[in-house]
Amino acid sequence: MQPDYLLRCSHVLRQLEPLGADAFLATDLTNVRYLSGFSGSNAALLISPAGSTLITDGRYRDQAAEQSPQVETHINRNCLQAGMQLAEAGGITAVAVESEHLSLKQYRTITAQNPAMTFVESHGLVEQQRRRKDDYEIAQVTAACDVISTVVTELMSEIRVGMTERQIAASLEHRIMDSGAERPAFDSIVAAGSNSAVPHHEPTDRPLEVGDWLKIDAGARVAGYCSDMTRTFVVGAEPTEAQQDLHATVAAAAEAARAKVAPEVSARVPDSTARAALGKDVEYFTHGLGHGLGLQIHEAPYLGSRSADTIVVEDILTIAPGRRPQESRTSLQ
Amino acid sequence: MQPDYLLRCSHVLRQLEPLGADAFLATDLTNVRYLSGFSGSNAALLISPAGSTLITDGRYRDQAAEQSPQVETHINRNCLQAGMQLAEAGGITAVAVESEHLSLKQYRTITAQNPAMTFVESHGLVEQQRRRKDDYEIAQVTAACDVISTVVTELMSEIRVGMTERQIAASLEHRIMDSGAERPAFDSIVAAGSNSAVPHHEPTDRPLEVGDWLKIDAGARVAGYCSDMTRTFVVGAEPTEAQQDLHATVAAAAEAARAKVAPEVSARVPDSTARAALGKDVEYFTHGLGHGLGLQIHEAPYLGSRSADTIVVEDILTIAPGRRPQESRTSLQ
Repeated sequence: MQPDYLLRCSHVLRQLEPLGADAFLATDLTNVRYLSGFSGSNAALLISPAGSTLITDGRYRDQAAEQSPQVETHINRNCLQAGMQLAEAGGITAVAVESEHLSLKQYRTITAQNPAMTFVESHGLVEQQRRRKDDYEIAQVTAACDVISTVVTELMSEIRVGMTERQIAASLEHRIMDSGAERPAFDSIVAAGSNSAVPHHEPTDRPLEVGDWLKIDAGARVAGYCSDMTRTFVVGAEPTEAQQDLHATVAAAAEAARAKVAPEVSARVPDSTARAALGKDVEYFTHGLGHGLGLQIHEAPYLGSRSADTIVVEDILTIAPGRRPQESRTSLQ
Repeated sequence: MQPDYLLRCSHVLRQLEPLGADAFLATDLTNVRYLSGFSGSNAALLISPAGSTLITDGRYRDQAAEQSPQVETHINRNCLQAGMQLAEAGGITAVAVESEHLSLKQYRTITAQNPAMTFVESHGLVEQQRRRKDDYEIAQVTAACDVISTVVTELMSEIRVGMTERQIAASLEHRIMDSGAERPAFDSIVAAGSNSAVPHHEPTDRPLEVGDWLKIDAGARVAGYCSDMTRTFVVGAEPTEAQQDLHATVAAAAEAARAKVAPEVSARVPDSTARAALGKDVEYFTHGLGHGLGLQIHEAPYLGSRSADTIVVEDILTIAPGRRPQESRTSLQ
């Protein structure tokens, strides 16, 4: 099972006419990968009615041929301007660019260098298309979820009072790579005691103490696709009543939010449901409820109180409310 | 020893008058970190004659107070527009933005939302300032180099025929985190046999065979600062004459390039020196010779045949030429 990249490119092409463009130049590397399979660090992809051309530099000549046999490859270090030249040589007069991924400086440069070209400032075009996960993508995300779930469960048997956050993170990431995943999907968050109240805590040399909260927020990457799992534990002791209460509140908020997830529902609804379930502790829930998951760890839609997104069939979503008492927060997903 | 962030901000301020701006809005996260110490994933920094204000969202309230006590903190999820509002409230009429880090879409949004503001499109202003590494930064990069050098040396005693690239990468990254570094500076490249000819190879399940080249390109991050080291080995056997010859050629090219590094020299000179030393094999040297190193793994200056940079005192540089015979390339730094 492999993605049909040309089909994905054809979906992009079909969206161009209402925009008044006759070609699309993808410069965001995740979008390039989604549309061509190429995963290198310097690339652009020109999609026109005549076909799709991947532009990358000489370091990636072999990799481009291997990963992207469905599209033409053109080697040029300056991928953006090379894409413009290919468009012009192909008779394109209006090219849609990704306005949220093109820098203002790049825009000034290419408009100066290509005075005859009309630039259509599109945004979110491929990102919205990427929300509709196909069977191949669902299989990769599922595999990535299986890896992180298995790895964290195995890690639990190794964790002891006295180990540091950093040691646990190192062991976790080693296990992720040993499990057959490509690598961690993001820098693993391992947070003990009061650090567990910090959403994006970086692992420190703080050792685990008896009765500590231990929050692990980590993911694995499989074929480019990410998982993102948060689990909170109590170290070396039975949870106190207060800890059990805190855990139950957050778990109930997560469950209530999950029950609201359905196609055609505003992405604000699960978020507001979780907030209502948290009651007065909602002031400690300082981030959005969740997000889309795919080739990026955070992608459309955004589940939060200011989201303009509507949930669609084939979205893959995370749900991760949080709450904290005076010194701690627990976060479940 | 801690950086003087206000001093760094004052250097930025001094560059604004010739640009016709009376404030600077940093939106690149590396530049924000350099100028304020803050390392979160959503931030902007407004630098004006009245002082510097860090803008970030609620997840990072505690972290901002801890990392950036020298500047004011303002909490707002939309850092960019909040920065513009703070500027306007402070009587600023012309703000310099980072044109290479502001997306075209962000630019359209803030110009529409702030019609009275004049936008000055600066570029490279903080990046050029960042080239002048101070004693604090040199100490961090040195520590990061010590970590990767020690870790790779220790790793050598563990490597055996039959281990896979992925196993070696997992062990390497575990050792980096155990060594006291924050984490790897970038995804480690472990490439065996013919894979060693691929500059940005991703580790696979290919097992090591006797006589293989083994290329390791890895780094560590200490206090945000990166190291970047490439070493090439022969596995489980004495190097053949051809391998020794290849190694010697690349080592000589690296040495010749290093000898040309000096203040006021064009960043093209070490690159062309290495190319000349490689002779006819230069066609396999498909990337630039090296780059600056600091808070980012690749930063100014760029050592390559099209570089417009001139080497300055306090630049920290990598030197990594490469060459390959029919099936292999070795790369030294």
